[in-house]
Amino acid sequence: MKIRIAENAGFCYGVRRAIKIADEALSKNKTIFSLGPIIHNPQVVKDYENKGLKVVEDINEAKNAVLIRSHGVSPQIYESIYKKNLECIDATCPFVKEAQDYAKKLYEEGYFVVIIGDKNHPEVQAHIAYANYQAQVINSIQEAASIDAQKIGVISQTTQSVDNFVSIVSELVKKTKEIRIFNTICDATEKRQESAKKLALMSDLMIVIGGKNSANTRKLYEICKALCKNTYHIETKHELKKEWFENVSNVGITAGASTPSWIIEDIIKTIEAIDHDVY
Amino acid sequence: MKIRIAENAGFCYGVRRAIKIADEALSKNKTIFSLGPIIHNPQVVKDYENKGLKVVEDINEAKNAVLIRSHGVSPQIYESIYKKNLECIDATCPFVKEAQDYAKKLYEEGYFVVIIGDKNHPEVQAHIAYANYQAQVINSIQEAASIDAQKIGVISQTTQSVDNFVSIVSELVKKTKEIRIFNTICDATEKRQESAKKLALMSDLMIVIGGKNSANTRKLYEICKALCKNTYHIETKHELKKEWFENVSNVGITAGASTPSWIIEDIIKTIEAIDHDVY
Repeated sequence: MKIRIAENAGFCYGVRRAIKIADEALSKNKTIFSLGPIIHNPQVVKDYENKGLKVVEDINEAKNAVLIRSHGVSPQIYESIYKKNLECIDATCPFVKEAQDYAKKLYEEGYFVVIIGDKNHPEVQAHIAYANYQAQVINSIQEAASIDAQKIGVISQTTQSVDNFVSIVSELVKKTKEIRIFNTICDATEKRQESAKKLALMSDLMIVIGGKNSANTRKLYEICKALCKNTYHIETKHELKKEWFENVSNVGITAGASTPSWIIEDIIKTIEAIDHDVY
Repeated sequence: MKIRIAENAGFCYGVRRAIKIADEALSKNKTIFSLGPIIHNPQVVKDYENKGLKVVEDINEAKNAVLIRSHGVSPQIYESIYKKNLECIDATCPFVKEAQDYAKKLYEEGYFVVIIGDKNHPEVQAHIAYANYQAQVINSIQEAASIDAQKIGVISQTTQSVDNFVSIVSELVKKTKEIRIFNTICDATEKRQESAKKLALMSDLMIVIGGKNSANTRKLYEICKALCKNTYHIETKHELKKEWFENVSNVGITAGASTPSWIIEDIIKTIEAIDHDVY
């Protein structure tokens, strides 16, 4: 049985960086308060809880040191951290930070700010705050059609798909005098999906690893399932089933943006063990 | 036989305005030098030549008073007019002027200026000059694909089609970090084409009036021809042929942007005369 891992599987640059920042901070502080889970992966969150990274949902629950995860937070949160005299460990992804800066700039220069993305995502929630809460979040051509402004400034959630972004922007271009677009899409997601597609096409069985609540992992699963019928979405090695591997020659593995390499490696080792049992 | 004229046929706002400015100036000056023909219509140009509007191709051939037609000219031409102490009769279309201002602004703010249009058209030639001759003119998705810049500013030739504009812009959006787009398309062309389409669908015969060298008239002819087989492109009433009108119940008429109303009226009168002869 051949096991292959898709290129670009697992952590993106921003998440890898956030984990590194958390590790460094934890080596100096006993307890750090993370505003929301550091990544969408229950195993990693639990692991970090044991190391002293306590998840809180409200800044008022935090003491001493606060970790800002890769998604970023509003300027008001920074202000609270400053006022409460807490240590700020900022792991905001630099690409997200850039999008925040553009949201602020566009708002200040008098543009009607449009954010293309999911309005409930924490990253987008912060972008709205940088546009002084005056931004409109849209995620479809239909929603774009409802916008009525003559000077539009556009940014995107970093994990937006390029195709959706372009089709929404095309709708906006038609109906406005001036439009200024910052393409703030990070290509990590697209690259991960493209590599998964390639591997799914040459595999009898695809294992997609990642949190069941992770949107990007679920998307990866859908993409692979469409190309390889035997596709399974798992969080840990304990979900692997021996019978999946019967009569399978080529196993493909990919993982969502929040999956650390040790979980991937753990799963590969388990599959190798199954392989030796089965054959 | 029923004769119907398409809405928005003939002169657009900018041309109507230029003709009015020329008329007013001719009532005060014996001879005025027009930099290029005032519109793409040989009949009108001849008519105005008799009134004292002399067409020159070079500013050095002009004396006393210069008419700038609706297409606009480069800043260098204004400078020459000023240096030569000539009277400047400026009939630049206000929509074209706006596009020139945006070309200048985008260049000055450090954008790589892209003009979507026909690089040989006098309007576009002037836009290039306002971008300090640093602009790139493109007119297709293929040409857009060759552009390599991270901060793009876009304007359009005012007579560009919205569909072509949007598809080119979509290509640019995909590949650049920042893009600022001024939609400088004037909707007169689109409205004229839409009205011609409607009328062509309900006519047995379509007459498209306008200069044979006028791009927008040729486009109107193509649009009508696709919907009404009996479509003819003429410049004057002398081209009308009796046999066209045999067994025809509904005649539709439209005219390009450079066709004055008196030419349209002249042609209608001739068709009415043919109608009385034929039946």
